[in-house]
Amino acid sequence: MTIDITIRAAHTSDLPEIYDLVVALAVYEKEPNSVQTTLEDYKRLFAQGLFEALVAAHDGKIIGMALYNMAFSTWKGKMLFLEDFIVQEPYRKTGIGQRLFDKLLEVAKAKGCTRLRWMVLDWNEPAIRFYEKNKAVLHKDWWIGDMAP
Amino acid sequence: MTIDITIRAAHTSDLPEIYDLVVALAVYEKEPNSVQTTLEDYKRLFAQGLFEALVAAHDGKIIGMALYNMAFSTWKGKMLFLEDFIVQEPYRKTGIGQRLFDKLLEVAKAKGCTRLRWMVLDWNEPAIRFYEKNKAVLHKDWWIGDMAP
Repeated sequence: MTIDITIRAAHTSDLPEIYDLVVALAVYEKEPNSVQTTLEDYKRLFAQGLFEALVAAHDGKIIGMALYNMAFSTWKGKMLFLEDFIVQEPYRKTGIGQRLFDKLLEVAKAKGCTRLRWMVLDWNEPAIRFYEKNKAVLHKDWWIGDMAP
Repeated sequence: MTIDITIRAAHTSDLPEIYDLVVALAVYEKEPNSVQTTLEDYKRLFAQGLFEALVAAHDGKIIGMALYNMAFSTWKGKMLFLEDFIVQEPYRKTGIGQRLFDKLLEVAKAKGCTRLRWMVLDWNEPAIRFYEKNKAVLHKDWWIGDMAP
């Protein structure tokens, strides 16, 4: 399947579609109640520059995205943290994910990042194969801690 | 042991001591070559506001720190990411880590963060016990991916 896709930086006007992608994925993962954010939160925090995203647009619709924020590693320096990476189901296995990821690497370089970091669920085999194909290092000896402040 | 400790936000002038703490820990972990950053990187990226830190000072010396950056979770919103959390060996088990962590929770609240996130090595039992005592959620089903851009 070859489809006409544009990969570009997300604008404020893309946030409703980005938010819908996040919610749809949470529903698919049977975790709809885990999304405690609202579209208004996205708008406010995007305006503050807390995060950015690349989107894949097809026929005027957003069908994939890579959402990230800048971070700091004491060992590696400036780092791009990829928080969420989604390609909508009917468009998977068409190379769109790779195009988003390639563009993300370009963005990271342009921003002076020396590292890209992300988290992947240990059962998400297609994602793990994707990252292995991209010669990423996958660290299996970390746990993720979190809590409300 | 009761010792006189001040917990405060890090200033630019603290960066040499913060950098030394990071290097000393990497040497202890037998990974001295993993520190690819320089003190100059720290100064430049701190000036850009990419990261902040809390330090524990005793007798004019920094003996512990919690280094963090702001991040964004698509599910939880604004998040404080704790990148590095160190208390120097002779000062462990004196409650300094807890004081740093309590202050960090205050900072996260003051900044409007709805979540605190960090990574912990699965073999680091004292750290894991510390986080469990603090009623944190520890997720064991994620791998960490990284690569150079």
